[in-house]
Amino acid sequence: MTAKLVVCLFAGSLVWAAPPERVILDLAKSPGAKLRNVPVSAVRLQGGFWEARRKTNVEKSIPTMLQLLEEHGVVDNFRRLSGRKQVARKGPLYTDSDLYKWMEAAAYVLQSEDRPELRAAFDRLTGEILAAQEPSGYLNTYYQDELKDKRFTEMHRGHELYCLGHLLQAAIAYYRATGERKLLDGGMRFADYLVRDFGPTKRPLLAGHPEIELALAELYRTTGKREYLNLAGYILHGDGERLNLSPQQLSYMFSGRPFTDRKIVEGHSVRAGYACSGAADYFLETGDPSFGKTLERLWTDMTQRKMYITGGIGSRSAGEAFGDPYELPNAKAYTESCAAIANMMFNWRMLAATGQARYTDVLEQALYNSVNSGMSLEGTLYCYRNPLELAGGPEERIRNPWYSTTCCPPNLERTFAMLPGYFYSTSGEGLFIHLYDNNDLDWKLEDGTALKLKVLTRYPWEGAADIALNVGRPAEFTLFLRIPGWSERTEVLVNGEPAASSPKPGEYLPLRRRWKAGDIVRVVFDMSPRLVAAHPRVMDNQGRAAVTRGPLVYCLEQPDQKDGAPVLESSFVLSGGAAKDFLPEFRADLLGGVTVLRHRGAASARPFSEIPLYQTLDRAERKPGKPIDLVLIPYYAFMNRGPAAMQVWIPYFRRAAMKM
Amino acid sequence: MTAKLVVCLFAGSLVWAAPPERVILDLAKSPGAKLRNVPVSAVRLQGGFWEARRKTNVEKSIPTMLQLLEEHGVVDNFRRLSGRKQVARKGPLYTDSDLYKWMEAAAYVLQSEDRPELRAAFDRLTGEILAAQEPSGYLNTYYQDELKDKRFTEMHRGHELYCLGHLLQAAIAYYRATGERKLLDGGMRFADYLVRDFGPTKRPLLAGHPEIELALAELYRTTGKREYLNLAGYILHGDGERLNLSPQQLSYMFSGRPFTDRKIVEGHSVRAGYACSGAADYFLETGDPSFGKTLERLWTDMTQRKMYITGGIGSRSAGEAFGDPYELPNAKAYTESCAAIANMMFNWRMLAATGQARYTDVLEQALYNSVNSGMSLEGTLYCYRNPLELAGGPEERIRNPWYSTTCCPPNLERTFAMLPGYFYSTSGEGLFIHLYDNNDLDWKLEDGTALKLKVLTRYPWEGAADIALNVGRPAEFTLFLRIPGWSERTEVLVNGEPAASSPKPGEYLPLRRRWKAGDIVRVVFDMSPRLVAAHPRVMDNQGRAAVTRGPLVYCLEQPDQKDGAPVLESSFVLSGGAAKDFLPEFRADLLGGVTVLRHRGAASARPFSEIPLYQTLDRAERKPGKPIDLVLIPYYAFMNRGPAAMQVWIPYFRRAAMKM
Repeated sequence: MTAKLVVCLFAGSLVWAAPPERVILDLAKSPGAKLRNVPVSAVRLQGGFWEARRKTNVEKSIPTMLQLLEEHGVVDNFRRLSGRKQVARKGPLYTDSDLYKWMEAAAYVLQSEDRPELRAAFDRLTGEILAAQEPSGYLNTYYQDELKDKRFTEMHRGHELYCLGHLLQAAIAYYRATGERKLLDGGMRFADYLVRDFGPTKRPLLAGHPEIELALAELYRTTGKREYLNLAGYILHGDGERLNLSPQQLSYMFSGRPFTDRKIVEGHSVRAGYACSGAADYFLETGDPSFGKTLERLWTDMTQRKMYITGGIGSRSAGEAFGDPYELPNAKAYTESCAAIANMMFNWRMLAATGQARYTDVLEQALYNSVNSGMSLEGTLYCYRNPLELAGGPEERIRNPWYSTTCCPPNLERTFAMLPGYFYSTSGEGLFIHLYDNNDLDWKLEDGTALKLKVLTRYPWEGAADIALNVGRPAEFTLFLRIPGWSERTEVLVNGEPAASSPKPGEYLPLRRRWKAGDIVRVVFDMSPRLVAAHPRVMDNQGRAAVTRGPLVYCLEQPDQKDGAPVLESSFVLSGGAAKDFLPEFRADLLGGVTVLRHRGAASARPFSEIPLYQTLDRAERKPGKPIDLVLIPYYAFMNRGPAAMQVWIPYFRRAAMKM
Repeated sequence: MTAKLVVCLFAGSLVWAAPPERVILDLAKSPGAKLRNVPVSAVRLQGGFWEARRKTNVEKSIPTMLQLLEEHGVVDNFRRLSGRKQVARKGPLYTDSDLYKWMEAAAYVLQSEDRPELRAAFDRLTGEILAAQEPSGYLNTYYQDELKDKRFTEMHRGHELYCLGHLLQAAIAYYRATGERKLLDGGMRFADYLVRDFGPTKRPLLAGHPEIELALAELYRTTGKREYLNLAGYILHGDGERLNLSPQQLSYMFSGRPFTDRKIVEGHSVRAGYACSGAADYFLETGDPSFGKTLERLWTDMTQRKMYITGGIGSRSAGEAFGDPYELPNAKAYTESCAAIANMMFNWRMLAATGQARYTDVLEQALYNSVNSGMSLEGTLYCYRNPLELAGGPEERIRNPWYSTTCCPPNLERTFAMLPGYFYSTSGEGLFIHLYDNNDLDWKLEDGTALKLKVLTRYPWEGAADIALNVGRPAEFTLFLRIPGWSERTEVLVNGEPAASSPKPGEYLPLRRRWKAGDIVRVVFDMSPRLVAAHPRVMDNQGRAAVTRGPLVYCLEQPDQKDGAPVLESSFVLSGGAAKDFLPEFRADLLGGVTVLRHRGAASARPFSEIPLYQTLDRAERKPGKPIDLVLIPYYAFMNRGPAAMQVWIPYFRRAAMKM
């Protein structure tokens, strides 16, 4: 025991000694990682699609959200405990986490740029938080004071570990941004308290809402203290039997029983998504094949049976839960923003473990669509739900500045703040390019070779990207270019010459050569609009198609339809290839600048209100009504002009069939 | 006040003096009734479709259900209060109503035939029940004894009036069957207690689960005491404001606010259906046009936006509730048997008020499909839910002998026991024939002319029915033949000659002449199989068709598919008319004797498990797989061979389109 402790401390001090890298996941020493993260600070977004979003996030979303958190008493909850303010506790029992997520967002901004006001705010909040912490290390504004006795007695709902998880993520991000350890030390005091008192032979512990697992894994990576990883492993194994949890609770929480026994994703989608992310972290650190197998099975169940085309997950409002296989209703889709973020997080970890582009495809799909839709273009309204169809009634105002459970807004903010960290990875062989946007990379290969890149592109509006390399010294390595699954025909030129191997959709194209400064790779993705069909058991989507272009899912929204036909009663009329039927047009004036798709579709031959509930098939409408000009916009931009009818999956007629 | 009382008593004594008719609704004096009921006892079912069901009901269902009610302590709940047994109360707070519904079933059987064992059981149960009644008249096994103080304090959930309503219905049916008033007198004591203590200027009253309204209306009809009708009117007006009910409660209960303010059917479907039935009774007794208008609006909302093709209503499990317009999922359909019965009850009253065949169409649709499906062919298993699709897993065993809330089984039993009473009505002009089956009618016209009819038919398996008249003396009157909405071409012959006016689907064909003994009317309905399409907003049914034949909805069930292709992966292949594509074949050996429909359809070209969740439309399957012989059975007979995959709405290909 003593020997072990020494090793731990030694390992710990080793880690502490190194200056922290500003990465999302510090996989530098992870035995199960094929890829390593590239620092957020190594990537500078430059005037492209995501830089606009990042800027809005930093300048509008993050400042206004802190104000709202203050107004709603989320910070006062800490001041109440430290005696700095005499107020009643406000909000649901998990409000601490909302503040921590905001702080994590601020910390990631600080990884990218110096923002003294954010740094000051973080430090000030750290003071407020730590002043409320008990000497034991325990910290939770709900379970201190009056409700102290309930501590760890209702873990299926208590969110104590969930809040700590978010505290740790914020603290680590800030430590990596600034080297400042105050909040991290506070978080570790709580984590150490858990390590000391809980475990298989001590008191039982449960992640009622998973999150702590991935935070403990990152804390282990940051400190080198293996007990944190072991605690994550214990929580992932689940101690539900000692806690008398019902099968329903175990399904809903996606926790409490051995993670590696799970066959399907089910229950609360954010819980399941975070649990999978935490399990993937554990897999990255241990390489335990039973975790790898389980993760693969759950990923397949999710992406092949329970995921929206937008990358959103969690079909049901009831329990904010996954549905049955293929239960993917459009209007009733719950698809919480947090769940889409959890989907990104899960895929980011699977990508690190495998280097496989199918995970990046899903990450990109979620990011551009159901994550991006979660924040309004102005950056001050947020979706909790991200449905794929809206009737447009005023009761459907689903973009709001604040929610009583306000998990999504700061979650979106931290995600956009860490975005540069998702663009690249390294492996022993070279550099992986995951996402395409205007940016400068200033980093190095794993052997230490300095490497700069400049990417110039109008992605996702246009398919071409020019990648200019600037290597410190000529060096042989592989540039792994992600070829998105949707790009059926991709052109890749190296210094004007076609690449040796041909790009395959859904894979990384390995370009191995002796790279030197001035080399230019040009990649041109296939940005033809695509018509997508859903599995025959997705009941809402039969006889319907969705249109995508590049990574973007499109939708019809009422304000763009100058013919005035209701979008829920409009159809596509397909002549042949989608590329011919849908014409892209960039509209700088619209929705912050978007490429719309124009289509000559059809109104319903009869207003829907006049169609009987049942009629003989022969009498049912089989022909389109009058031709109308339809304009599709990217899904993420929906409801930025107030509530309006919107739909992603559109019924279609085929012109050939009509001529019969 | 005194004068009024005298009138009431006088009116009351008048009614009591007359021997009771054995009708479902006694509309003899109802000012708003266009049609009057014909006694249950006047109609004798003779070896046809419904006689088989009625016999099973009498010989199997009713006796075994009483045994189960005894076993589960439902009768003991009364014995506990009377001190005859020292036991704890068992079951949910509304169990009394289950016993009353069983008693109503027994009473209706006694209206048709002499069954000494049923009469003895009814009398014995009456003794048990009345021994528990308080001197005040109050009677409810949940709110007596320990919970006495909660009486009338939680009416939104208490079911006190609901139980009384069912007691009154049982008591009235028994009084009409036997002339015996004991239970009826007991029920009236409770009703009188309500009349005395509750009302607009007294204590507020609420039907937390509507039912009392229609029972009070029938009690008024039976006794002539108008205060019962007035109390029903007060309850229908709703006193929710005095009771501080939330908008959600008012929607869910379909009660508590003015019925005539309602615009849509919503909330708990059985509650809404019973409320509409009670309101229709009130309309029949008052002719109040605001009720007529509201009932029409609600009926249209229900039948044109919220009703399954089976006549089932109530789409959602959550709250056992109506869904949004066109929210009619198949696999998740809740469609409680009780709700389908409520639909029948509502339509029976609307038919009486108007004489319009569209109500009979819906009544027949519900009766043959979602009501009939509620009881197994052997009569001992019952459906609570009647979904339109099943995956066939063992967890989907939805036919059971007993439910903790066992409302549906005795409700089905009373409905089948009163069935002969639904076959005919009279008006001042003559006789209405609503339903077709082998039966003898022995009744009279409203002017007293004796009239016998004999109907010979193999309906619903064949479309021909011969109606032989036997009039006491030649008399001019109108025979109103119902021409079902689904019979597009109907042939009607009177004594071998075509009828003067041509039959219109969905209307009553009036045959007016001087009828004499020996006249024969032959009607031949169009029994061609029909393919039905649903409204484009019924998301589950797009690209799918349902097959009906006569009043029956058909389904594919796995055991009949000799080719073994999964029914959920099978499609229709349509060549032209449904009559050509679907071949009827009577199978005496199958499911108690049914006409199946044979169809040459197609398996899926790829097993569904191999089809990706999303793929480009071009790659998606557009062609049927290998041809397979499909056999469709009537929906009502599903799951009589254990759990199996089943579906009503089947995807289809058109052969013409395939040749493109």
